[in-house]
Amino acid sequence: MKPISPEAVRTAIAAQRPVVESLFDRLAQGSQGEPGIMRDTYGAGENFAHELIASHGADQGLQIRRDAAANTYLTWPGSEQGAPRILLGSHLDSVPHGGNFDGAAGVVAGLTVIAAMKALGLRPRCDITVMGVRAEESVWFEVSYIGSRSALGTLPNGALDAKRIDTGRDLASHIAACGGDVEALRQGRRELDPATIRAFLEVHIEQAPSLAEAGLPLAICSGIPGNFRYPNARINGRHDHVGTPRRFRRDAAMAGAELAMALDRLWAEQEAAGIPLAITFGRFHTDPAMHGLTTVPGAFDFSLDVRAYDPAVLSHLEARMLAIIGEIEARRNVSFALGPRASASVGMVDPAIASQLQAAAQSQGLPGTMMGSPASHDAAAFAAAGVPVGMIFVRNENGSHNPHEAMEIDDFLDACAVLTSWVADQAA
Amino acid sequence: MKPISPEAVRTAIAAQRPVVESLFDRLAQGSQGEPGIMRDTYGAGENFAHELIASHGADQGLQIRRDAAANTYLTWPGSEQGAPRILLGSHLDSVPHGGNFDGAAGVVAGLTVIAAMKALGLRPRCDITVMGVRAEESVWFEVSYIGSRSALGTLPNGALDAKRIDTGRDLASHIAACGGDVEALRQGRRELDPATIRAFLEVHIEQAPSLAEAGLPLAICSGIPGNFRYPNARINGRHDHVGTPRRFRRDAAMAGAELAMALDRLWAEQEAAGIPLAITFGRFHTDPAMHGLTTVPGAFDFSLDVRAYDPAVLSHLEARMLAIIGEIEARRNVSFALGPRASASVGMVDPAIASQLQAAAQSQGLPGTMMGSPASHDAAAFAAAGVPVGMIFVRNENGSHNPHEAMEIDDFLDACAVLTSWVADQAA
Repeated sequence: MKPISPEAVRTAIAAQRPVVESLFDRLAQGSQGEPGIMRDTYGAGENFAHELIASHGADQGLQIRRDAAANTYLTWPGSEQGAPRILLGSHLDSVPHGGNFDGAAGVVAGLTVIAAMKALGLRPRCDITVMGVRAEESVWFEVSYIGSRSALGTLPNGALDAKRIDTGRDLASHIAACGGDVEALRQGRRELDPATIRAFLEVHIEQAPSLAEAGLPLAICSGIPGNFRYPNARINGRHDHVGTPRRFRRDAAMAGAELAMALDRLWAEQEAAGIPLAITFGRFHTDPAMHGLTTVPGAFDFSLDVRAYDPAVLSHLEARMLAIIGEIEARRNVSFALGPRASASVGMVDPAIASQLQAAAQSQGLPGTMMGSPASHDAAAFAAAGVPVGMIFVRNENGSHNPHEAMEIDDFLDACAVLTSWVADQAA
Repeated sequence: MKPISPEAVRTAIAAQRPVVESLFDRLAQGSQGEPGIMRDTYGAGENFAHELIASHGADQGLQIRRDAAANTYLTWPGSEQGAPRILLGSHLDSVPHGGNFDGAAGVVAGLTVIAAMKALGLRPRCDITVMGVRAEESVWFEVSYIGSRSALGTLPNGALDAKRIDTGRDLASHIAACGGDVEALRQGRRELDPATIRAFLEVHIEQAPSLAEAGLPLAICSGIPGNFRYPNARINGRHDHVGTPRRFRRDAAMAGAELAMALDRLWAEQEAAGIPLAITFGRFHTDPAMHGLTTVPGAFDFSLDVRAYDPAVLSHLEARMLAIIGEIEARRNVSFALGPRASASVGMVDPAIASQLQAAAQSQGLPGTMMGSPASHDAAAFAAAGVPVGMIFVRNENGSHNPHEAMEIDDFLDACAVLTSWVADQAA
């Protein structure tokens, strides 16, 4: 392919604005979640998004493929058969009452890059594939990266038996109902061989307002956090009368509060030492079947997610947490049942890709700021499988996983322009 | 009446054991709550208990009366018309999944005293009335002492509009459905004129295992705590992505945990200074419609009950709590909506009655230990209306408001014997 100027890329991307706006609007209209967006994993909202993207890709002349996990692939074939392909994508599901851009922006970005490259008269040497990934939001089945790890053949044993948290229906039957091939997944058959992938690139809105705070439209990802999780932990104490004296109490809620405050202090200390991490008790509650104004809580449930960019930091935090739990158990005469543990490895981005994206941004007059991802991403599953990955974050002043998530189309188009420069260069 | 020896009283009470056991068994059988007991306020379980007690009283030749709040009165008429009567009683409702004795023991005790006095050939000068009180457990309507305050004409304005917390149905319609007279209650018509009551005596299981710890079968009550309550408080923050950095978070659950820990420390300090109190967050929970593993909680609900024996201590605690809430709001960028506030006055027991009960216990070879009540009781509503009150607590090794509540019939009969001596003496 001929070299292409940054100005030409930006002009071609700007011309895609009506298509981009229309795609986002149609996505939102078809997956309302009052308030916000509801694209439930392997549910009606996610299915709608996959059908919309596939139909749009077909209109653009792209090849459509679905794999055994019902991931969607839209491919613009390259001129050189067998050249390792470039994957551009992200997930199409959302949390309950989430926003329209978390995930979907990365898929729309891939489609936008291809459309701009076509408009510029480019023809890639390798295949460019936009991947609409299934099931990234672990709130539904409490398993990370279901779609991307299924495609890569790295989904852990037993994951297909996970239950959707609200209905209790298992993942396997959801996948089958969406046209997937559960038998193939159980046999570990993979759609994607890492050796045939040049790179996986993901545009994603930032999940926090750091870029808004800094006044930057985008940033290049420097790393994706790993985590450990206890999705279904319980503290057992004893339900007692509201007047029970202190020395007799086995108050499970106070034990939960003490753990939360201890981890919160640990977080503050680490942060003061310059170590980024995040600790979240997403579910944190007394037992609705037993609790009441005049009863000391004898049971307390919580979920815990702890994430950091350094595996050693994660190990240290978990060891400290277990020690703190032992102290609370002794002090408050309660017992913790942490339940199943889940974890995800720290996701390393490819340093060369990060530098190239940085250079592409700067050549377009955009900032080349690097930033650690606050959140987990499908890119981390690709990195763990040995695929070089890169990510671009787009400014979002209200954070994500909430109905008020916000993204300016201008910022999104800036990210698409940077990505287009990189793809045009790499696929030339 | 002729004076009666402590030994004769104990023999007459011991003879009541089969009746007592049968009454408690039938109460439990008719109000199962799997696990435990369910005698819901103005519901099926409480109605069953009132019917059982009324039917038993009728069999014993007592006069049956129901008042406008559907409280039940079983009267053994005295020989001297117009002499201020003695009330013996307690409530017949329970918390959800509570025990069989919390409340009901005080009613069975009253019936046992009358039966023993009759067996001893005594005839009281004044009426002896056993009162089965409605609606003492404030977990259901989040209003204290509904039954006793209705009888005394001291129920606050608006209480009849309180909603049952699980069904949302209002108190007035519950009372009407149980045969009460809501119009009479709205007009403030009272069943009981304090001037016509010599005293209200209440036997109750201890709500904590203090007596079990001390190896004592019973204790004489030295005071009933007052309280302030916020039954429906909420913390508003913002739902955010699990990866949101610390500085952007408005985590409502962490704010709740911080308040709980701050009040817990305050409690520990006061206790170390010898000041008895209790602090309970009975409901303490994230929003089930929004919470999840990967969402920072943007809303948190709690109920709070703070109780102490000294009005000045309660004022001090509430002022400290409000100051702490201000600090948490500023530090965590959340806002507290405390919602409706409820309170109950500290209940003073009559010192003469307490001394007389103590002397009666000692004359029977029982300990005369005095103990502050850990819990609120109907006796406090009578005390607030100017009626002299006394209470006897019975040992309970597992605490109350839980299915494992426990009471030995031997201990209960000891309390009945002490009460019989007092009534026989006072009504002579």
